[in-house]
Amino acid sequence: MILVTNDDGVQSLGLRALAEAVRPLGAIRVVGPEGPSSGSSMSLTFHKPLRVSKELVGERRGYAVSGSPADAVMIGVHKLTPKRPALVLSGINFGDNTTFQDVFASGTVAGAIEAAIMGIPAIAFSMEVPDESIFSPAGFDIDFHKAAAVAARIAGWVIKNGIPPRTNLLNVNFPRFINGNTKIYITKLARRKFRDYVLERKDPRKRPYYWIWGDRLTDFDKDTDAYVVHVLRGISITPLNLNLSSQEAPELRSLREQLESSLPKVVAH
Amino acid sequence: MILVTNDDGVQSLGLRALAEAVRPLGAIRVVGPEGPSSGSSMSLTFHKPLRVSKELVGERRGYAVSGSPADAVMIGVHKLTPKRPALVLSGINFGDNTTFQDVFASGTVAGAIEAAIMGIPAIAFSMEVPDESIFSPAGFDIDFHKAAAVAARIAGWVIKNGIPPRTNLLNVNFPRFINGNTKIYITKLARRKFRDYVLERKDPRKRPYYWIWGDRLTDFDKDTDAYVVHVLRGISITPLNLNLSSQEAPELRSLREQLESSLPKVVAH
Repeated sequence: MILVTNDDGVQSLGLRALAEAVRPLGAIRVVGPEGPSSGSSMSLTFHKPLRVSKELVGERRGYAVSGSPADAVMIGVHKLTPKRPALVLSGINFGDNTTFQDVFASGTVAGAIEAAIMGIPAIAFSMEVPDESIFSPAGFDIDFHKAAAVAARIAGWVIKNGIPPRTNLLNVNFPRFINGNTKIYITKLARRKFRDYVLERKDPRKRPYYWIWGDRLTDFDKDTDAYVVHVLRGISITPLNLNLSSQEAPELRSLREQLESSLPKVVAH
Repeated sequence: MILVTNDDGVQSLGLRALAEAVRPLGAIRVVGPEGPSSGSSMSLTFHKPLRVSKELVGERRGYAVSGSPADAVMIGVHKLTPKRPALVLSGINFGDNTTFQDVFASGTVAGAIEAAIMGIPAIAFSMEVPDESIFSPAGFDIDFHKAAAVAARIAGWVIKNGIPPRTNLLNVNFPRFINGNTKIYITKLARRKFRDYVLERKDPRKRPYYWIWGDRLTDFDKDTDAYVVHVLRGISITPLNLNLSSQEAPELRSLREQLESSLPKVVAH
């Protein structure tokens, strides 16, 4: 069974197109958040209970969880699938998830990371869309069918070949338009997509409030996801490994030695 | 200037102890979330504006942001510090943040990751505490002063030596009790701390609701953060690198070739 989730909510056009396209690959279970939770990252809900409601997703049955994408994966895997899913697909997100900035903040990628931590092969799919459509994911402006057809091919390859060694999940990003000549690239993550800033406004009482925002960057390294999607307009497939541990940091030995020798004094008072 | 944040809210005992302990290192600005946001991960608030309120934190001034730890860092760096902070410290969290599971879901680590993406040296601090105290972070049961004294030494080392090459931030975890004999280890991330499951309960209407929870694991690899904190009862310092890209995945070449050759057919309909 394939579990399909996302962070835009189960009624998102991107999820519907993805679930429909992968149906030939096997039984599908759609379990997503109730509503849009973009930027929810990998939040997990431990401090309050979660509800699950049935929703008609397109013409098929789906389940909406009152939490984050990671919550949806957790409940989907443990309670809404008869056995452990063979694959978890997350998306197709409204808006590409390229660069460290997007990957760490994205709920779509987080759904796939949660599955990967559980040891389940997982793929996150996202597509560049115009900014104005990002907050209407159940809308009708964007056609995800071509991206979904490619996504189904990628999912089929992973079912047959598995996630590659030293890789825990794939992060796939589609450009806004795809045709028969669109190129596919295996990429690395770029660092940043936005030069972030904070806008200050005043409310009617003259008290400040703030918007987090950013200017789009364009100077990406050539082998990166953001370069492929935003400059080459190609399809980017980035293999991700969850092991954030630095491979080596011998400089820290001196920190350890200093701390150990001073510890009795440091913790005495 | 040093920016101090966390995910338990600005009134948390752990943040207060940390801010007090690092005061000799330079000017401090405390900017944290209004209330507990554990498990908030690296969520960023783009879809609604944020408010900032002044709060007396202990006997000092602090700022509370109506968002996540990553939001607090963003607003702290751009609006509440006279110039770019030299260092961002996040914590001390109620509860250790060890293993992939914790590191991806933790708001405390996310505050440090957000700073690291902005290119600012950052350290996340967390301490093992009894489960029952985790949801009273402004409570009075846990003594963070020894951990904070060690944290200040680590922060001082980073101010002097910088974050090591190929490393973007440090993730530090303290055991519940520290004394002059406590050992310090440079570690890697373990994979999982919990065997996760989902509990089903029934409300008075007999409708189900769900709790995400997990059993603690104990079989950690010996060079990992969780082994050091939970088995050796030592202090764990884990250098983290944000680059999740797999270093190599030549297996994906066949995926790319298959996709490119079939693309005209795949996207035709």
